Amino acid sequence: MTRIVRVGAAQMGPIQREHTREQVVERLISLLHRGADERCDLVVYPELALTTFFPRWFVDDITTADHWYETSMPNVATQPLFDEAKRLGIGFCLGYALMEGGHRWNVQTLVERDGTIVGTFKKVHIPGHEEHEPDRPFQHAERYYLEPSPDGFGVWEAFGGRVGMMICNDRRWPESYREMGLQGVELILCGYNTPLHYAPDPSQDPLQGFHNSLVMQSGAYQNGTFVVGVAKGGVEEGVPSLCESRIIAPSGEVLAAAETDGDELIAADCDLDWCRQYTGTLFDFDRYRRPEVYTRITSQRGVHIPGAT
Amino acid sequence: MTRIVRVGAAQMGPIQREHTREQVVERLISLLHRGADERCDLVVYPELALTTFFPRWFVDDITTADHWYETSMPNVATQPLFDEAKRLGIGFCLGYALMEGGHRWNVQTLVERDGTIVGTFKKVHIPGHEEHEPDRPFQHAERYYLEPSPDGFGVWEAFGGRVGMMICNDRRWPESYREMGLQGVELILCGYNTPLHYAPDPSQDPLQGFHNSLVMQSGAYQNGTFVVGVAKGGVEEGVPSLCESRIIAPSGEVLAAAETDGDELIAADCDLDWCRQYTGTLFDFDRYRRPEVYTRITSQRGVHIPGAT
Repeated sequence: MTRIVRVGAAQMGPIQREHTREQVVERLISLLHRGADERCDLVVYPELALTTFFPRWFVDDITTADHWYETSMPNVATQPLFDEAKRLGIGFCLGYALMEGGHRWNVQTLVERDGTIVGTFKKVHIPGHEEHEPDRPFQHAERYYLEPSPDGFGVWEAFGGRVGMMICNDRRWPESYREMGLQGVELILCGYNTPLHYAPDPSQDPLQGFHNSLVMQSGAYQNGTFVVGVAKGGVEEGVPSLCESRIIAPSGEVLAAAETDGDELIAADCDLDWCRQYTGTLFDFDRYRRPEVYTRITSQRGVHIPGAT
Repeated sequence: MTRIVRVGAAQMGPIQREHTREQVVERLISLLHRGADERCDLVVYPELALTTFFPRWFVDDITTADHWYETSMPNVATQPLFDEAKRLGIGFCLGYALMEGGHRWNVQTLVERDGTIVGTFKKVHIPGHEEHEPDRPFQHAERYYLEPSPDGFGVWEAFGGRVGMMICNDRRWPESYREMGLQGVELILCGYNTPLHYAPDPSQDPLQGFHNSLVMQSGAYQNGTFVVGVAKGGVEEGVPSLCESRIIAPSGEVLAAAETDGDELIAADCDLDWCRQYTGTLFDFDRYRRPEVYTRITSQRGVHIPGAT
């Protein structure tokens, strides 16, 4: 039995502040149709795919930003996407901000080909800052607007395999991939919004594309899993942001790469049995891992310099 | 105060079975002199730098292989290297097999510029197999000949910074870098012997160079540390092995790369203060890590598929 999942990475160009949910959902459906043309089983959208990246602005009263969050999924604005995907028999993964029981989350929802919701993942590693930092050319106040997930990384049975999710900054942390690898993940879906300018250390600016690909390729290889990285990029509200969406094999090789900085669908056949060539050999965790000497990874958060007081 | 350490990666071509320790030490001293010409503070030699990669042969009586192990360091054969390094004021890191109290280890010893031994690291992740596998074109019986370290990864104050070590297969495991990163490592020294042919999955053969660089570059970036990867390569006893030694910056960028498959010294200035541009910003572990949701990493060795019995 073949386990080939044809995956489309639906990269998006910018969503400006004045764009409505309805306008954005039209773009999502247009990308879905490109996915249908490509015979995709699954189309993956970016992080915060329904709105602009609103943490770039600080507001003193956070409730004035509530309109950036969804309060249910599907909802009136996104129902046409759910309907059209079900009609076409294509699953999808959608990133958005969710307000739920007084909590504010950065989430991705995975939907199967028959329209059922598989699961909703909450972002674990929230980057940026908590307070207004007026010296920055733009804010990255994700830690003000969005809570870190208390749940960590899960893996869901879907699309004939085991699917995990992560969001943006999660991809820079090897623990993200490993937590999913230890649950047998075969396909990781990751949306991102990554400004090209990193205010705390601008020497990293020209390396954004390199770092993006480096962490996803190594995470794929070291856990024997496909990784699908999908950007919302281009110049959004004056902020140039990384595109360079990628579909990466368990070998770490890039199978498909976006070439534009706008709405673009790239696709690849992901043969989930390829994973075993890594997880069954070099990365047979049960045979080769040494958790008894990894204790610092869970017993401490920050750096402890030996001998320092 | 500048904290620039000039590091030389002393790649070696093959060591054949009939080469004596004395012949090899002559080559090590020759590489040390190239390091002196390059004004190096520290010269890093490969894994098993005193002998051929003997785990490629299986012997039923392991004691007949005892001659591949050192029983003390320095010893008669290596004393000239220690003497010459001290005379030149150059530190070094040397990989070899060590027999100690009935244990067989794969180790690296780090020596300061004044000749004092800083520490000896034992390899943590032993790859390959335990039993004779006669169907392979050559054996990789490291798990027969060498015990995994019970000690894990340490970091030593040396060369004006915090230095860690790992050996060969350790570099493929993100936990290796992270354990050292959590101790504030700034410079990781890694020797390797990597056959180009991987019998359990030959589809990986053409990717050996890519994987080698991928894991070291991502490990450097994700922990904000320099990584020095040093090969013994070329065709050793008929087995083609990877060269491609590298000195990698905390940005993940390759600062120096070997171009030959023989004895070759490459060098780079490693400004240890560069590490802070990563460990003080994006990878400020204390601010951004989430160990409370990494629990699988230490609580289980192998894959546990959720819901599976």
